[in-house]
Amino acid sequence: MKKIKNPTACVIIIGNEILSGRTLDTNKHYLCKELTKNGIDVIEARVIKDDEKAIIQVVNEVRKKYNYVFTTGGIGPTHDDLTSLSIAKAFKVKLIKNKKAVEILKKFYFSINNELNEARLKMAFIPKGAELLHNPVTKAAGFRIKNVYVMAGIPEIMVAMFKKIIKSLKKGTPFISKTILVKIPESNIAKDLLKIEKKFNEVEVGSYPFFNNKSKGVNIVLRSKNKNQIKKAINEIKINLKNL
Amino acid sequence: MKKIKNPTACVIIIGNEILSGRTLDTNKHYLCKELTKNGIDVIEARVIKDDEKAIIQVVNEVRKKYNYVFTTGGIGPTHDDLTSLSIAKAFKVKLIKNKKAVEILKKFYFSINNELNEARLKMAFIPKGAELLHNPVTKAAGFRIKNVYVMAGIPEIMVAMFKKIIKSLKKGTPFISKTILVKIPESNIAKDLLKIEKKFNEVEVGSYPFFNNKSKGVNIVLRSKNKNQIKKAINEIKINLKNL
Repeated sequence: MKKIKNPTACVIIIGNEILSGRTLDTNKHYLCKELTKNGIDVIEARVIKDDEKAIIQVVNEVRKKYNYVFTTGGIGPTHDDLTSLSIAKAFKVKLIKNKKAVEILKKFYFSINNELNEARLKMAFIPKGAELLHNPVTKAAGFRIKNVYVMAGIPEIMVAMFKKIIKSLKKGTPFISKTILVKIPESNIAKDLLKIEKKFNEVEVGSYPFFNNKSKGVNIVLRSKNKNQIKKAINEIKINLKNL
Repeated sequence: MKKIKNPTACVIIIGNEILSGRTLDTNKHYLCKELTKNGIDVIEARVIKDDEKAIIQVVNEVRKKYNYVFTTGGIGPTHDDLTSLSIAKAFKVKLIKNKKAVEILKKFYFSINNELNEARLKMAFIPKGAELLHNPVTKAAGFRIKNVYVMAGIPEIMVAMFKKIIKSLKKGTPFISKTILVKIPESNIAKDLLKIEKKFNEVEVGSYPFFNNKSKGVNIVLRSKNKNQIKKAINEIKINLKNL
């Protein structure tokens, strides 16, 4: 792997329903795509249970390793929502009733003729010192504490939260990515690809075979921050393919 | 969380293309679903890069923690396929040309009038002491070394490999899972759900709100190994819902 100086990130998906296979996780894919597009490199992703110990351990491990950490899931009103409390414990701060968060919820539930019951009020408990993250959909806020962004698990809410968060992040230089689809076996071009990767030192060459009922072949993906190098590498691959 | 004595597992997805958001990972979801169905509890899942250090570190961490470890990706013929070598290093054994794997490949490529070139031969290099895992699709084998099962990343091949692997695993008691869909806000039933969870000590109660343009509400998911308890819990939830 070539050296890159982009900010780094880890995505943590919290939820028993993902690990049991009940729910297809789409949050990870969305976050990986959007962060990459903004030049923030996702180095790893974790999927963990709604479990206090697991959340504390993983958050404390990765927040020291990467510039940004994004969590999704477990900040709702029910007993199985343990993320806020666990994050507070990870940072060794108290989980306190956040006045601003209470105000937002009060206003919202009043506007829809609903009461701010005990369960809903639970969503206004935020780790001390955290900054609220706006939730334009159901209003119950997420929060940021240091480099850890804590978001809802429902995809529609997570996306709405993230669209605001991304504006405040330090961005890197996004990779330019070009894909060449070829319908020959991956192993026939393996040697050539290695040569290309060695020759163009700013280009990362990935090789992703596909195989289904309709067709088979390989997607050659070139990634680089250098437009010129990627152009030259593509030309060279095309010449190699003609000679096969 | 209630105590369970099922075998435990960790799923490791290896591939830059997943973390960059280029490819939607479907392997994790498939494996989580199938393992859960067979009473094997997936405690965590990791997504990491095609990076030697990362693979070694993560595999060595989780193989001690869980009964089974499943990896997908990075065992193909190209320069970016680093999984086999990294797993060998994790176990401190040599990566050797496996005679049986070579024979399988020779036979296959001869049968389709193709040569076993250098790149293809790379796929016959397997950690010393590992057992081959049958690949009925493209023949290049996966392998098992101790409790770590190393599979291909292409979903069609991974699934075919796994269908054979699952037969050899020690299985647990699968959870019975029942879902009640209700179209009221999650926070209106939070209290009742907590009561149910406390009353039926063998039942795990999960609450998964959904929210989209068409409708909103919550899926209440009850999981237990005890058929009777789950029946009683469902009845009680239904009575509670009527009283709301």
